[in-house]
Amino acid sequence: MNADRQAVTVVGLGSMGSALAGALLDRGHPTTVWNRSAGKARPLVDRGARAAAAPREAIEASPVVIACVLDYAALHTVLDPVAGSLAGKVLVNLTSGSPEQAHEAAAWARSHGADYLDGAIMTTPPGVGDHGMMFLYSGPHAVFEAHRPTLAALGDPLHLGADPGLASLYDSALLGLMWAAMTGWLHGAALVGAEKVPAADFTPLAIRWLTTVTGFLTTYAPQVDAGRYPGDDATVDVQIAAIDHLLHAAKARGVDNALPELLKSVMESAKAAGHGPDSYASVIEVLRKPVEAR
Amino acid sequence: MNADRQAVTVVGLGSMGSALAGALLDRGHPTTVWNRSAGKARPLVDRGARAAAAPREAIEASPVVIACVLDYAALHTVLDPVAGSLAGKVLVNLTSGSPEQAHEAAAWARSHGADYLDGAIMTTPPGVGDHGMMFLYSGPHAVFEAHRPTLAALGDPLHLGADPGLASLYDSALLGLMWAAMTGWLHGAALVGAEKVPAADFTPLAIRWLTTVTGFLTTYAPQVDAGRYPGDDATVDVQIAAIDHLLHAAKARGVDNALPELLKSVMESAKAAGHGPDSYASVIEVLRKPVEAR
Repeated sequence: MNADRQAVTVVGLGSMGSALAGALLDRGHPTTVWNRSAGKARPLVDRGARAAAAPREAIEASPVVIACVLDYAALHTVLDPVAGSLAGKVLVNLTSGSPEQAHEAAAWARSHGADYLDGAIMTTPPGVGDHGMMFLYSGPHAVFEAHRPTLAALGDPLHLGADPGLASLYDSALLGLMWAAMTGWLHGAALVGAEKVPAADFTPLAIRWLTTVTGFLTTYAPQVDAGRYPGDDATVDVQIAAIDHLLHAAKARGVDNALPELLKSVMESAKAAGHGPDSYASVIEVLRKPVEAR
Repeated sequence: MNADRQAVTVVGLGSMGSALAGALLDRGHPTTVWNRSAGKARPLVDRGARAAAAPREAIEASPVVIACVLDYAALHTVLDPVAGSLAGKVLVNLTSGSPEQAHEAAAWARSHGADYLDGAIMTTPPGVGDHGMMFLYSGPHAVFEAHRPTLAALGDPLHLGADPGLASLYDSALLGLMWAAMTGWLHGAALVGAEKVPAADFTPLAIRWLTTVTGFLTTYAPQVDAGRYPGDDATVDVQIAAIDHLLHAAKARGVDNALPELLKSVMESAKAAGHGPDSYASVIEVLRKPVEAR
């Protein structure tokens, strides 16, 4: 323990909550933990944590309370009965949820006299404590700044704005990018795998290619903001021609084409809206309208 | 011009072919160009290229002939009448197509006494000549090695193997990853954009997040090759729970959910196949079967 380090309580000791508490202990924060099933606390107690016997005792132990439970229903089950203990505390809620749930939780915390930061953890449990990993926060800037040194024990803390819903909004947007990228990568691995290319050979090229793709994103971001999509580098028409090679090659090798077929249909919607000669960034125009409205 | 540099002919002067010829000129290669519509050659002639009057003259001008035309139909329209001139040359075919088309072109070139490399350009025309950009080649290793210094004028040349279809197979696989990632990024930009977050603010975080995601790919590649997917870091079940937050947040903001709905259905197919407690890499098991077979 380190006397100049903020005391922190962690509520919820699933694999992520346990990783959070472990990172705090590693940085010398006096750390109190609580979990519904007490057995989860044992490895942390062995590393120097104090196990609280009940939620109220956990909250009263520290000025900063980090909550990381299964969902908002679990959050309220734990905290509602002891809401009176939150006055004067900072509740840092790292439970996954929607922006709307974050707004409600922020209002609920304020009504009980607590400061509130909503957060999202952009890594898996083994990445917690690594300064390269992003932890996204939203809520009052002053509250974030006051506790930045503590939050830095968990990863690289980034403040997105005062609206408490922003962290979970970004979280969903970034996870959507991850699922799309991971599924696209797996589709590619299945395709080359049909020709006996190991995923371990394909993946370094895929990772290097993603660096090239991030260059395209950097080019396209200001196009999205300007609503103008000059197709100087590559057009939607060119992409539509190229995706047929993928569909053909994958079909011939028994690889499910649902993902590239959907991507082609999105490109064709953009073309139908007049974006054939524009850059791929123009596809955002058709994503902004629900399918029924196309 | 540089006397120790290989003379090269470029057939096809669309934006990509023109970029290839320009990169060769920049590195001092004696460069002959030909295009169906002769006007495209003019800017390159101004930079030192020689414009051939006809395909035969173009091919006879250099031991290395790089072809970059619209498609394989265009390739054969240009080269079939002058196939006899290819004997003893190296044909480097950078025309986009399928692995099957590459196999046929390789056999055709061999039947006319030419060496053949198939290639794929993993950048847009403005990236040609940049050593960070990948150029993928497949075909005889000795032919690749003999011409590597010339190919290095265009970008970073990587040899994938002797099978001439490998370059276009990897090309399709990598483009599929690109379309998935770019569409996922645009979906995220549309989602945060609904809350007035500029794409220029979201994109640096998206790019940093992709670096974290590439760490997941590095973890998952050997799982794919082993056919075992331990869910130590995050399970398919966890992803299914999280994607509902994205669907909810996007629907509430009028963003088209076709992509995340498809991704969720793929995850649910993996769960139905028993992969709920496994890592996301297990999703490849359902991609290997066509939809009808699920």
